[in-house]
Amino acid sequence: MFRVLVYDVSQKKVYKVRRYLADKMFWVQNSTFEGYLTEEQKLVVMESLGKILDPEEDSIMIFSTESEYAWKKMILGVDKSCISYLLKYGGGEKDEEQEGN
Amino acid sequence: MFRVLVYDVSQKKVYKVRRYLADKMFWVQNSTFEGYLTEEQKLVVMESLGKILDPEEDSIMIFSTESEYAWKKMILGVDKSCISYLLKYGGGEKDEEQEGN
Repeated sequence: MFRVLVYDVSQKKVYKVRRYLADKMFWVQNSTFEGYLTEEQKLVVMESLGKILDPEEDSIMIFSTESEYAWKKMILGVDKSCISYLLKYGGGEKDEEQEGN
Repeated sequence: MFRVLVYDVSQKKVYKVRRYLADKMFWVQNSTFEGYLTEEQKLVVMESLGKILDPEEDSIMIFSTESEYAWKKMILGVDKSCISYLLKYGGGEKDEEQEGN
């Protein structure tokens, strides 16, 4: 399923959460990741993040739909995901996994 | 349409963005609002936010689907929207508009 993950965590945990998610989903702007995760992958991600979070203070939401085409996405201002994409992939072709097949 | 709005703006603009959105969508956690907006309402929101943002530095994403049932939402940690909801509505019944009819 295609998923958007938004996190609201204390400052000292931001780096840990971002580093953990960096190779599992696609950073699109601060506090927001996108990407395809199977149900099993999602459960692993939630379990791992659960060990990082303070359940009383921190919050993570995952919105899931069958595919990224189930919703429309509109961006106002700068599209930070492009910048991070170039940093990560050096401007080459998006690899298969990111294409959301 | 049901919409999730996530914002990544400079610190000095956070208050303005949140105050503007407060009576148009539902705050669910830092950087994240949810709610039903018609196409016209969405355009008004984007135009107004466009006046607040620095297009070179700030970013707002709106994910839209036909209805909130088009996706599944999972929360890890504290559900901050409940806390804000109680503050806003004092724990009474959710009003019609928020129910997402």
